[in-house]
Amino acid sequence: MSVTAPRGFVAGGVACGIKASGAADLSLVATEDGGAVAAAGVFTTNLAAAAPVQVSRRHLEMTGGRSAAVILNSGNANAATGAAGRADAERTCRETAERLGCATEAVLVCSTGLIGIPLPIDVLAAGIPAVLADRSPDGGSRAAAAIMTTDTFAKQTVVPGPGFAVGGMAKGAAMLAPDMATMLAVLTTDAVVEPALLRRALAGAVGRSFNELTVDGATSTNDTVVVLASGRSGTAAGEHELTEALWEACADLAGQMAADAEGATKVIRLRVTGAANAQDAAAGARKVAQSQLVKCSWYGQDPYWGRIVSELGSAGIAFDIDRVRVSYGGIVVCDGGIEARPADTMSLDAVMGRARIEIDADLGLGSGEASMLTADLTHAYIDENMTTS
Amino acid sequence: MSVTAPRGFVAGGVACGIKASGAADLSLVATEDGGAVAAAGVFTTNLAAAAPVQVSRRHLEMTGGRSAAVILNSGNANAATGAAGRADAERTCRETAERLGCATEAVLVCSTGLIGIPLPIDVLAAGIPAVLADRSPDGGSRAAAAIMTTDTFAKQTVVPGPGFAVGGMAKGAAMLAPDMATMLAVLTTDAVVEPALLRRALAGAVGRSFNELTVDGATSTNDTVVVLASGRSGTAAGEHELTEALWEACADLAGQMAADAEGATKVIRLRVTGAANAQDAAAGARKVAQSQLVKCSWYGQDPYWGRIVSELGSAGIAFDIDRVRVSYGGIVVCDGGIEARPADTMSLDAVMGRARIEIDADLGLGSGEASMLTADLTHAYIDENMTTS
Repeated sequence: MSVTAPRGFVAGGVACGIKASGAADLSLVATEDGGAVAAAGVFTTNLAAAAPVQVSRRHLEMTGGRSAAVILNSGNANAATGAAGRADAERTCRETAERLGCATEAVLVCSTGLIGIPLPIDVLAAGIPAVLADRSPDGGSRAAAAIMTTDTFAKQTVVPGPGFAVGGMAKGAAMLAPDMATMLAVLTTDAVVEPALLRRALAGAVGRSFNELTVDGATSTNDTVVVLASGRSGTAAGEHELTEALWEACADLAGQMAADAEGATKVIRLRVTGAANAQDAAAGARKVAQSQLVKCSWYGQDPYWGRIVSELGSAGIAFDIDRVRVSYGGIVVCDGGIEARPADTMSLDAVMGRARIEIDADLGLGSGEASMLTADLTHAYIDENMTTS
Repeated sequence: MSVTAPRGFVAGGVACGIKASGAADLSLVATEDGGAVAAAGVFTTNLAAAAPVQVSRRHLEMTGGRSAAVILNSGNANAATGAAGRADAERTCRETAERLGCATEAVLVCSTGLIGIPLPIDVLAAGIPAVLADRSPDGGSRAAAAIMTTDTFAKQTVVPGPGFAVGGMAKGAAMLAPDMATMLAVLTTDAVVEPALLRRALAGAVGRSFNELTVDGATSTNDTVVVLASGRSGTAAGEHELTEALWEACADLAGQMAADAEGATKVIRLRVTGAANAQDAAAGARKVAQSQLVKCSWYGQDPYWGRIVSELGSAGIAFDIDRVRVSYGGIVVCDGGIEARPADTMSLDAVMGRARIEIDADLGLGSGEASMLTADLTHAYIDENMTTS
């Protein structure tokens, strides 16, 4: 159970034939009765936004935030596909809407896969009746499986809120960076909520979860997070409660994505504190988290803090090397900008060997703080990405 | 011959014992008679600038651009070493100056190697008499060899100018990014030139060479390019002639660094044209050149242009996907933002198999142009950087 945990939703997932492997590649999340409910979305900031992103954005604008379904395909991004790609995304929504009995603009669409390859729209369209037939209150896991690309496991979450629930599914393993990691996520809730509040709550939740995640600094063309709120719990959600519940769901899914980052052997939680302000802290954390050199050190379990200090010094933020302190798993390795020999080298080795490492860099300048979730850079990442065929 | 090709210079290189391997690690470039001549420098923009960078910058300010020698060590960066590191860099200059018979501030100092490890200053100081004894008019190659770290070959150049000559040596293989690649370079010329003109010419030359080079997006703590002008040719250099000759030397050295980039199998010359302005072109070229995903594709010889378009779309520059054209070695693979099937796939395979690939991205918006020299991301890069021991 994932997106179907909150009351009022059905989901399904089938193989329609986009993927040559025959794996599931068409996914649907819809309201039980096909009626439109409060909805909100956050989309990629990439100016090469894919056709489904353009279409979903417009549909949400047209309805003022009322949607009945999200249809998603994996195996093709429908990005850099021009006017034909936009027509294909629109047709996907229309044929889904006709069978659900709702307006075309009440359907949102997401795609993930290779960029620049024309979407095999006839293949996809032929699968729409099948995924609609597959939809059921226990179909959340099938829907989550059908959006996987290089993911090695399906990402799902359920969060109990006060009087309502939040469910979610997501995919993402590379081309992952803040301002929307390369990822798709569909959240559902049975809270009673108006579209405007839902939008604010979603933005607040995404800012502290997916946007604090980077695998490789690449912001994809297809990033999308959408939420549908059925209202079926009968509980009106306050903004704070809803934001917290959505955040918990997003943070859980973001953590699953980091753990499944392509080729990664480690998840790193990097915290920058003591920055002149929050913007500096975020920019510094991002610079370190996206450094090829630093990520190689993590892979090699080498506590070489010199590269971290160097990245912070070139992050374009206020910085005074004489005030910097760096620690791995709480063990200080650099203090006042110079080497701090840890009392216990054995413990440091143990920290570096962990599958999850907490790294803190305090700049000693102010109260700005930020956090990033990231992964190491490994031979397997290169294997995965050196060819697309 | 490299830095000793222009008249009036001597150089030397010895093993003083900083490197455990026993390889050469102390290098000197000096005027023949130990007298100060016109000099200029360009240094890292990293706020974690190493002690030798801080000391050399101050020495050039104190003298108004008059130097007699540059002393360089490899095997230790003397970065993130605090006040002790600054005192060590100053002592290196002082002991060199005493033996050369010049003022301490007439000596510049450079270091390259690991960050955060105290400089073994007594070891280095004990080597100063040896490197001074080693200096000679044919010592350029020995000086170039003694600054190598992970470099697989010494980088040298000689450029004949109109009535004067330019010589140069450099090191750099990783932690290479614009606004000073992680690198050291010493240039010499026998042109007659005042410090102010030398400074402008150097800045002009570096902007179109080293600052157009990126291997891994990391701007090091130690980047330094210095030039000494002996005036011994008797030819007064015009600004244009001098800038061109220095640029030719810098471009040659930058090309050698790209070819020797850690683990690289390919050198990529990436050109962005048709940008709204030159700043956009440079930002777009840098974003693509620093993309892990794109660099993996190059390693795999995969002409997957979708990642290039996605990076351009998220570079924070003016961008319209419907106007983009991308080509590899002149073969157009994307036109109008969608796939352009090349007439001859065999030729495209041949282009991707080359050791040097020219990639062009035209944004179709204006006349902004920029160029970057970079390399692919390989298993060997990770091998090289996963541990420092």
